Amino acid sequence: MFKGTENVTIVGLGLIGGSVAKALKARSDCKIHAITRGGETMLQCLQSGLFERVSDGSDSESILALSDIVIVCLSPNATKNWIINNAKNISGGAVVTDVCGIKRDLCNDLTEYCSANNLRFVGGHPMAGREVSGFTNSLETLFDRCNYIITPAQNTDSDALETVKSLARVLGAKHITITTPENHDRMIAFTSQLPHVLAGAYMKSSTAPEHKGYSAGSYRDVSRVAPVDEKLWSELFLLNSDNLIDEIDALLYNIAEMKSAILSKDKPQVEKVLREGRIRKQEIDN
Amino acid sequence: MFKGTENVTIVGLGLIGGSVAKALKARSDCKIHAITRGGETMLQCLQSGLFERVSDGSDSESILALSDIVIVCLSPNATKNWIINNAKNISGGAVVTDVCGIKRDLCNDLTEYCSANNLRFVGGHPMAGREVSGFTNSLETLFDRCNYIITPAQNTDSDALETVKSLARVLGAKHITITTPENHDRMIAFTSQLPHVLAGAYMKSSTAPEHKGYSAGSYRDVSRVAPVDEKLWSELFLLNSDNLIDEIDALLYNIAEMKSAILSKDKPQVEKVLREGRIRKQEIDN
Repeated sequence: MFKGTENVTIVGLGLIGGSVAKALKARSDCKIHAITRGGETMLQCLQSGLFERVSDGSDSESILALSDIVIVCLSPNATKNWIINNAKNISGGAVVTDVCGIKRDLCNDLTEYCSANNLRFVGGHPMAGREVSGFTNSLETLFDRCNYIITPAQNTDSDALETVKSLARVLGAKHITITTPENHDRMIAFTSQLPHVLAGAYMKSSTAPEHKGYSAGSYRDVSRVAPVDEKLWSELFLLNSDNLIDEIDALLYNIAEMKSAILSKDKPQVEKVLREGRIRKQEIDN
Repeated sequence: MFKGTENVTIVGLGLIGGSVAKALKARSDCKIHAITRGGETMLQCLQSGLFERVSDGSDSESILALSDIVIVCLSPNATKNWIINNAKNISGGAVVTDVCGIKRDLCNDLTEYCSANNLRFVGGHPMAGREVSGFTNSLETLFDRCNYIITPAQNTDSDALETVKSLARVLGAKHITITTPENHDRMIAFTSQLPHVLAGAYMKSSTAPEHKGYSAGSYRDVSRVAPVDEKLWSELFLLNSDNLIDEIDALLYNIAEMKSAILSKDKPQVEKVLREGRIRKQEIDN
């Protein structure tokens, strides 16, 4: 169980890692340690007053040897690599969790791998973000009222699962969803990845540069997530390409249905297509 | 010029007309009159205390005979029909304006028609709305900080144009754009109509009903405008079908570009497509 006094090590101090650190510092008595790349972020971490110790990775063994919980806040491939390279240095029995936006590619493998190294891995995905990145933009309140998805594998330790659930609550999660890595990836293709495909595609209209003075909330909302970190999101898209292609195809089909109704000047059909979208939204969200 | 003490008649007391009435009542000394259908809305108008007189249209002549400004807050076809049927009853020299989301189909014809009836028509489009409709949901603050587009035709009276600009400012507009009906319709296809096509198409994914617990801001934002009034929006789409089809085609092309990059597992290309969207958004909005 999570006591709130553990030694917690955060690996990767970008927007997500920094926000985890700030929330934990403000809302628990955990002793928090940071493992980050050197350079600007390392300086910011040192100056923040949040951490017991800050390591650039070259001397992380002593931090990891006393860690009860390790929260890896890196991109999917970097998360996998970091855990594989560092598992042997982490204190036996420690809970290891991640924050990645895809889960199939990570959770089953890492659960096995960590288990073989006497560690307890639990996949996690806090559904929160900003259109800006880096430790500088991290916020204590980033996860407040968010959905937090936890994806145990078949062999996930139940006490470790409880620990990550408690951690999610301390971070501010409103709703915790427990599901399989497979279902997570299927849902996230629709709720998160598809809107990111759309925002970029929308902004590439040749009309976009002239929008000022002609736009309102609907422009702002559709385009909001266009400023993605393309290194991260290209990785997320390709690690979930089957589900994402399914969602893209469904969207292309549904847009084409409207296009066809408009082209044939078929007002009852345009109304019908709009009505179906309206009713769907109202049924689902009310 | 707009003095703020005129007799103003609002035709159609739905979300937009009701909000115009509430803002004018709070922020000017105009005498406000309502022409509405009978029934519930008429009762609400009578009880609101906003209006000098409320007519169900059967006795609107006496109101129109003393109107300095008539603001028609109906759908495009209803706007056109109402003005054609009532122009002869409106006080000579009065300024007539509308709030429709398409302009080519209305402005040139109505400018001519009104001019022939000694009225001064000026097309207007306040870029504001809500996902709910009707007088009950109208707000004094609906237009605060909005973009307000005004589309004079070649023969539009310049004093009447100034009057509608002043009116827009009193309603709360932050930015007033003066452009042609043709340019308005081209821009609005991108900034407003396309997001409405998208929101409905997005909600029709078979995954949508399961989204709870898996969604965050990007789901909420893309789907926000799905609950459209399909009677109104099908009319708006069909009266601007050429521009809207151009935008739909551009979007389909840009989504297909991402689909193709994902299908070929081409990470540099996925990154490139995302980067182009990011840079476009950052260049335009900063």
